[in-house]
Amino acid sequence: MAARNAFYAQSGGVTAVINATACGLIRAARRFPLQIGTVLAARNGIAGALDEALIDTAQISDDQLAALRHTPGGVFGSSRYPLKDRVTDRAQYQRLLDVLVAHDVGYFFYNGGNGSMETVQQVDAFAREQGYPLVCIGLPKTIDNDLMGTDTCPGFGSAAKYVATSVREIVLDVQSMARSSTQVYVLEVMGRHAGWLAAAAGLASTIPGQGPQILLFPERVLDKAQLLSQIEDSVRTVGHCVVVAAEGVCTPLGEEGLGCDAQGVHAHGKPGQVGVTLAGWVERDLGLKYHWGLMDYLQRSAGHLVSATDQAQAEAIGVAGVEMALAGETGVMVGIERVSDQPYRWQLKSVPLARVAGQERRMPASFIQPDGLQITQACRDYLQPLLEGESWPPYQGGLPQYCHPVLVAQPKRLSAWVK
Amino acid sequence: MAARNAFYAQSGGVTAVINATACGLIRAARRFPLQIGTVLAARNGIAGALDEALIDTAQISDDQLAALRHTPGGVFGSSRYPLKDRVTDRAQYQRLLDVLVAHDVGYFFYNGGNGSMETVQQVDAFAREQGYPLVCIGLPKTIDNDLMGTDTCPGFGSAAKYVATSVREIVLDVQSMARSSTQVYVLEVMGRHAGWLAAAAGLASTIPGQGPQILLFPERVLDKAQLLSQIEDSVRTVGHCVVVAAEGVCTPLGEEGLGCDAQGVHAHGKPGQVGVTLAGWVERDLGLKYHWGLMDYLQRSAGHLVSATDQAQAEAIGVAGVEMALAGETGVMVGIERVSDQPYRWQLKSVPLARVAGQERRMPASFIQPDGLQITQACRDYLQPLLEGESWPPYQGGLPQYCHPVLVAQPKRLSAWVK
Repeated sequence: MAARNAFYAQSGGVTAVINATACGLIRAARRFPLQIGTVLAARNGIAGALDEALIDTAQISDDQLAALRHTPGGVFGSSRYPLKDRVTDRAQYQRLLDVLVAHDVGYFFYNGGNGSMETVQQVDAFAREQGYPLVCIGLPKTIDNDLMGTDTCPGFGSAAKYVATSVREIVLDVQSMARSSTQVYVLEVMGRHAGWLAAAAGLASTIPGQGPQILLFPERVLDKAQLLSQIEDSVRTVGHCVVVAAEGVCTPLGEEGLGCDAQGVHAHGKPGQVGVTLAGWVERDLGLKYHWGLMDYLQRSAGHLVSATDQAQAEAIGVAGVEMALAGETGVMVGIERVSDQPYRWQLKSVPLARVAGQERRMPASFIQPDGLQITQACRDYLQPLLEGESWPPYQGGLPQYCHPVLVAQPKRLSAWVK
Repeated sequence: MAARNAFYAQSGGVTAVINATACGLIRAARRFPLQIGTVLAARNGIAGALDEALIDTAQISDDQLAALRHTPGGVFGSSRYPLKDRVTDRAQYQRLLDVLVAHDVGYFFYNGGNGSMETVQQVDAFAREQGYPLVCIGLPKTIDNDLMGTDTCPGFGSAAKYVATSVREIVLDVQSMARSSTQVYVLEVMGRHAGWLAAAAGLASTIPGQGPQILLFPERVLDKAQLLSQIEDSVRTVGHCVVVAAEGVCTPLGEEGLGCDAQGVHAHGKPGQVGVTLAGWVERDLGLKYHWGLMDYLQRSAGHLVSATDQAQAEAIGVAGVEMALAGETGVMVGIERVSDQPYRWQLKSVPLARVAGQERRMPASFIQPDGLQITQACRDYLQPLLEGESWPPYQGGLPQYCHPVLVAQPKRLSAWVK
């Protein structure tokens, strides 16, 4: 059988290690020239693929690939271009298949979160229905850590390490200042539906009573009165209070405060809404001095502070994707299986997409303290290994040197597509 | 002459390396037991000193001191307790002197910014007027980099390294997403009157045209129409726009937008006001997709990403403070003198406090491009060496291990003070 090309695309919000997955995949594919021709990467994700904007990754040197392992962001560009099912969006699936056919793609790798795994499922089914032989593999990625079927999601461990480190530093800062200045600190972190990153902030404390004093999860409805009372208690007893809030926390439906959607699930706000709202309560209702911070993209692209564990898993997932594809698997996601907590040992497995797509993994109740404001030991045991290990990018002139390879376009073979 | 004790206090907003100055000072003092008894550190700065809340630093081991070199925040606590001149606030200066006398303090070291250098000047004069022999030395510290008489201020280089690194990462993130998601990114950094940290963000770009595309300095009055036009241009030409704004930028007096004070100098707002205002313009006036971030304390306490140059200078300033004190200098600040740019060479000098106190060092016009939205090569040449070198704290369990020494109180010798 002649070698066939592979397609790779990045999807959704990027992470500090999504390029490590690309690196793992492309390097692994190069080891099997009899089976895999060229890895063609979509420029700007699936949106670019529909435009037949493909990148010939054969033009990227081995040294550049190695450097991409340390480079945050999505080197090929990502997209938030939502595809519905293959009936509703039939024209787009047909166009995508035309592009794959035109470039003799036999392997479809899609690196994303929840929604992306649904897309992989749809592409897999569509190709089969059209009688086109295509191996479809999902590669997980999300700092939200909300994918089913995997112990953790590449990108989360690094974001968690960044959040926990930063919160440890903020606590030291606020402790220094609280006597005559900032008494309450509010930090908004990502997490619309799942509080994994807010939970990671809990790892910042090692000494009992040390901040962060309060963690707010989207899994719990926010009780303003309880929150303000706890903040006051903390200021009274230890002189300050550090609050880490997931962007998705909200007050009960109909109450003043942070709006919820019709399902009462979370605020569909802009970044900063939760942070500034909580800070406003501290100022107006409690009369306490505050500062607040909004990590936003900082937390998901901090290549200068990745978790070596996360980076290794991200890369290994790219490698395993190739191996699974060559072993004839399709319609699966590469998942991480935890073999043991201490020492942390993990292995990779294939997970049927049906077990992943459209699902959402929120924090289990056993990971949140009964008062809803802290994590449990079980949560610490789960989270801690994911942050383990440091992997510094190279530095030059005092700053991390990230890789900017020249991306060479694969010549187009189709006429332009008008949606 | 019998050894006399030394007093050390931290003042104002803390930094990632203020404890390196404490470490340098305490270690140097231990080398001169015939001249210096114990270094007594004020708990929570001058506010604590007035309460006679002193810490016996002799109880801190050499290993702990070494670890403090890597620990952000102010280990003894800082304060924003403003002292006016010795006539207006005479009772407080008298109390402070009583505390110094009671503990046989012959050396007064004060680690802070502008305002703190004024306090050192006042204490120096007050002690002399009262006939109390006291050597008074100012030790500079501020991430704002706005002190006169020194090439740079300890704390700034590390904050600048953190800002430039983070902006480099944000640019990679936004580049990845701009095709179908975030087109404009607004990052608010510190700097009420001086744009040094916004300027540092300019070091993030190495390739012409690479972001950040726009830097906003308090030294320039913000022209909303010009800004929005530049943002649109950037989105049109490169697909995205990253804006880094100092918290102190403001629109002209009387115009809609960011309020200025009566001097038209800067917004006296809460953290986030500039960021959210600019983001709102992007959304409402341009209809572009945006995200925004607020670094706040993150940028001044990032012990995980200090500049080795900054850390070395901070420590050396503590050492030099002791040496200058023993050489009989008083009423001076320890300043950094730049000997050469490339290679960067520096030495320490003593600077009369009169040349520092009440002054403010803003960005010179030659450091800002004519359009007011970028830095010049002269600015790059000035800034770059300050970020040089990495100095990682020790890690354990995936997180930096910071030092939490037990602080032993020096027994009080005075009755409680009622202000």
